[in-house]
Amino acid sequence: MNYEERLMTLRKAMKQAGLRAYLILTGDPHHSEEPAAYYAAERRYFCPFTGDNAYVLITEHEALLWSDGRFAVSAPEELKGTSYRFIELYRPGNLDPYAYIKEHQLYPLGTDFSILSPEDLEILEKAGEVRDTSFASLLPTRPALSKDPLWDFSDARYQDHTAREKIERVRQAMQVLGAGAHLLTSLDDIAYLTNVRGNDIVDTPVFYAYLYIDLTGAFLFVDPTRLSFEIPGVQVEPYEDIVPFLSDRASIPTLVDPKECNAKLYRILRHPIPGAAPSRLMKAVKSPKEIENIKAAQAEDGVALLKFMDYLDTHQGNLQDEWNLVERLHAFRAEGKHFIGESFTTIAAVGPNAAMMHYAPSEDTYSSIDGNTLELLLDSGGQYLAGTTDTTRTFLLGKPTSEFIHDYTLTMKSLIDLSSCVFLEGSTGVTIDMMARQVMWKEHMDYKCGTGHGIGYVNVVHEGPNGFRYRLVKGKNEGCVYAPGMITSIEPGVYKAGKYGIRLENNILCVPDVSNADGNFYRFETITYVPFETKALDLSLLTDEEIAWLNTYHQLVYEKLSPWVDGEMLAFLSEKTKPIAR
Amino acid sequence: MNYEERLMTLRKAMKQAGLRAYLILTGDPHHSEEPAAYYAAERRYFCPFTGDNAYVLITEHEALLWSDGRFAVSAPEELKGTSYRFIELYRPGNLDPYAYIKEHQLYPLGTDFSILSPEDLEILEKAGEVRDTSFASLLPTRPALSKDPLWDFSDARYQDHTAREKIERVRQAMQVLGAGAHLLTSLDDIAYLTNVRGNDIVDTPVFYAYLYIDLTGAFLFVDPTRLSFEIPGVQVEPYEDIVPFLSDRASIPTLVDPKECNAKLYRILRHPIPGAAPSRLMKAVKSPKEIENIKAAQAEDGVALLKFMDYLDTHQGNLQDEWNLVERLHAFRAEGKHFIGESFTTIAAVGPNAAMMHYAPSEDTYSSIDGNTLELLLDSGGQYLAGTTDTTRTFLLGKPTSEFIHDYTLTMKSLIDLSSCVFLEGSTGVTIDMMARQVMWKEHMDYKCGTGHGIGYVNVVHEGPNGFRYRLVKGKNEGCVYAPGMITSIEPGVYKAGKYGIRLENNILCVPDVSNADGNFYRFETITYVPFETKALDLSLLTDEEIAWLNTYHQLVYEKLSPWVDGEMLAFLSEKTKPIAR
Repeated sequence: MNYEERLMTLRKAMKQAGLRAYLILTGDPHHSEEPAAYYAAERRYFCPFTGDNAYVLITEHEALLWSDGRFAVSAPEELKGTSYRFIELYRPGNLDPYAYIKEHQLYPLGTDFSILSPEDLEILEKAGEVRDTSFASLLPTRPALSKDPLWDFSDARYQDHTAREKIERVRQAMQVLGAGAHLLTSLDDIAYLTNVRGNDIVDTPVFYAYLYIDLTGAFLFVDPTRLSFEIPGVQVEPYEDIVPFLSDRASIPTLVDPKECNAKLYRILRHPIPGAAPSRLMKAVKSPKEIENIKAAQAEDGVALLKFMDYLDTHQGNLQDEWNLVERLHAFRAEGKHFIGESFTTIAAVGPNAAMMHYAPSEDTYSSIDGNTLELLLDSGGQYLAGTTDTTRTFLLGKPTSEFIHDYTLTMKSLIDLSSCVFLEGSTGVTIDMMARQVMWKEHMDYKCGTGHGIGYVNVVHEGPNGFRYRLVKGKNEGCVYAPGMITSIEPGVYKAGKYGIRLENNILCVPDVSNADGNFYRFETITYVPFETKALDLSLLTDEEIAWLNTYHQLVYEKLSPWVDGEMLAFLSEKTKPIAR
Repeated sequence: MNYEERLMTLRKAMKQAGLRAYLILTGDPHHSEEPAAYYAAERRYFCPFTGDNAYVLITEHEALLWSDGRFAVSAPEELKGTSYRFIELYRPGNLDPYAYIKEHQLYPLGTDFSILSPEDLEILEKAGEVRDTSFASLLPTRPALSKDPLWDFSDARYQDHTAREKIERVRQAMQVLGAGAHLLTSLDDIAYLTNVRGNDIVDTPVFYAYLYIDLTGAFLFVDPTRLSFEIPGVQVEPYEDIVPFLSDRASIPTLVDPKECNAKLYRILRHPIPGAAPSRLMKAVKSPKEIENIKAAQAEDGVALLKFMDYLDTHQGNLQDEWNLVERLHAFRAEGKHFIGESFTTIAAVGPNAAMMHYAPSEDTYSSIDGNTLELLLDSGGQYLAGTTDTTRTFLLGKPTSEFIHDYTLTMKSLIDLSSCVFLEGSTGVTIDMMARQVMWKEHMDYKCGTGHGIGYVNVVHEGPNGFRYRLVKGKNEGCVYAPGMITSIEPGVYKAGKYGIRLENNILCVPDVSNADGNFYRFETITYVPFETKALDLSLLTDEEIAWLNTYHQLVYEKLSPWVDGEMLAFLSEKTKPIAR
């Protein structure tokens, strides 16, 4: 069947159900950043669009796709030959899907409440009747959800605290809030609290489950056949049973985060206590063993990136294309003893590709590298046993322009200024962000994104609630007060459309600095160990302190990586980490 | 009658009223920072404490006074010979007055709802019955409220907008919020919207009134005999009539700020729409004429401070005492053609006095100045026709220690770094504050206060909602997004108990910088024109950019003040503003 035939079937089903419109959202019941293919299948079946952040709306006569400006060119291309119309999100003058539904009174509206947020359901319901509907049953096939065995991550090598201990801490927070129960739907929190991991989402070792904690028990809703071990203090129930289970306990005052929970489950609760899950902050503050393991993983990742830099050096003129570099980097990482997989899709972008913030090459789409290729932006990370990394470096492949050198140096200043700052207890990323922005803003430049995000521990690579952004953005969970143990990325950049993109990214650990009568001061310890491209720096733009920071950093990189390499690679490391001076 | 006799009378009245406790708060019905003496009279009559931030609680057997750590020494001293017991607020382990009332179940409790905030009333009522009570009638006399004529400030020399125009803008904001009416109790907003001023509060040209705006009319509740002019679009009603007037209109959805309104009026409203008054933001953004006038006032103030600096210079060894300096400064300001009065109590503090952030000399209490006096901190401001100023300088009176020089230089860096920063539209003082703090924090030092506050236009010297503070503090109205036209103080400092205090303060105007594809960038223009003490600087600690900023600033000061002085004073100005170099 082609798309028009599929839409015809869908419209027939809609008519039988008495619906004027059907809305297909992007997401899963757990508010995951990158849902499993299973959840994308319905939209993919009814609409040829392959990007994300999409809303598909089908009415009797119309087929509409909304997505953001990143896909303004590719989406209409993909929709060619169908009756779909593309509407760009956030573009002034354009109606968003909810406003469109209201404007055209497309009620009754059907949509899957398990993908919708409680807040969005409220917005939709203000203008008409909304029904919990899914037509996924019309799909002839659908990619399966993972059936892989879950892995026990509770070993004392990896954890300072058992699941029982972590859940007990959650109970203490619940009691302060007067909650008799707590419903968790976010997969990163569930993986953290249970000390269990899975392979259900690409590059992210989480698993599809719900966790329900009350004052005496804890219930994990997951396919029980996937578990071959006990979780202390946790009883396992089938995944599907969450609905009847919750319905039985609907009247218990239940702590639940309306920003994470889906509308289907949220609506069951008669006394929801809306609030952030206590595990958000617990897991953001890494324990001593987690920190030790993460540093080891960072060193292992640093060795892979060092080998990659050596490859760039020794294969100049023969680097082929971006995809080759992605594969080379993967191979170097795979040589590491504890490597599990990437922590996100590797971005290896040359030339103007690097200026597109969401660009990543794929096996099918990539740019080649030739004598005209001047720079490479490489943003990648690994999942290790035990640690998660996220590093960006920008490398020279040719002779850079003076504009590039200036912008690269500015980015370096931005990274150093934030990395070396000191701040008082009580500070948030809203304040600290100024350290990275000021050098950019003084030149009337800005990177249009946050400066950094929290990073999980063998978990999601984008973790809240720590982050750096000069203003709070709705839907981003990143404005918390900093505490020792938090790990955050710092990734300023300069993006010049059609020319180049520069980004430099380290991961930094918040540590205590000095405590005195004026308060508790904190600072950051850098825990990414990868040399920077120093040949692209204009040293006259760096202060003495900034140069000293860079030299100290490279000395640290040498100390961390040198035990793991020898011979020519050690000499290369030594060369790449040697002090610079004006 | 002595205090014990007065308390006996009070307790008798409490018994007759059936109250177990009576709470006397500090404040007025308008949430003013410095209420008129009339409102302080009751507490002063029943309790000998002369400081502020006080709560007096009288029960059958106890008399309790709460205030903060600033008065930890003086309060017990003042209470000697009475049955009063002092409890320090905010001290770990101490119950605050509300917790004390709850703990000892001192209900029914009497207190004046017109001084209480709606929020505090809710807290108190959670644990028992609270009655709107005042025993101020027991006072034999009470300082009168001002009967002075109000002044018409609507002249086109002073205003870009008439009261009618301003109120119409408020109505537009009301309609967006679905409000049919708007109750204003804050005196600074009322003075701003009506283009009227008064002398009801020391150093603050506001007047006691309420303003009620509905969709067609505006009603000013004020003693009508004080008004000899019309206010366009505003009808005048007697001050006392606000209660019956509001009761008649209680069912109209009314925009009201629960942080500004008192509980007595708030409770009358049956459909309050809680929210900040639209005039808050309107008056924070100064109009072109206001800015022009403020700059002229700043120049007039600068001349007075220049004369004061000259006095310090020419009277070395004969400066007598702090109070003499306060009087000299007042005399120099009074020479100005447009001077109305101080904008707050002048702080002229020598030696360790300057380390106490709330110290100010009075006619009765001051320190003398002798050969051992090394430094003077002078924080003062004026109300002018038309403008309000707030400036701090720290002067050398002797040879400074190297520690002082270091700390003074640090304070100067802090001021310069914030003054010269550039920021993107959307930034708040929470982000920008980092520019002032970072040099301090890097040395593990912090001044325990905000970096700056908004400043009114012939109005309160502490005005919201702009400010600089790295974290939002409850009860402070200062976290707004910056906009061109906002005027803010910037006043970092170093305070070393028992040694000295350093503070440097300028007023800065937010202005547009550059607009480009990355956004609208803003910066600050300094509008205080007073030379800094450059002899106390360690130039080796300043960057080239910081020295350049200082030289450019002093050149500006020369340009602004030189038209108004001649002869020896011009030479003195020239000397005080000459460029410095390493």
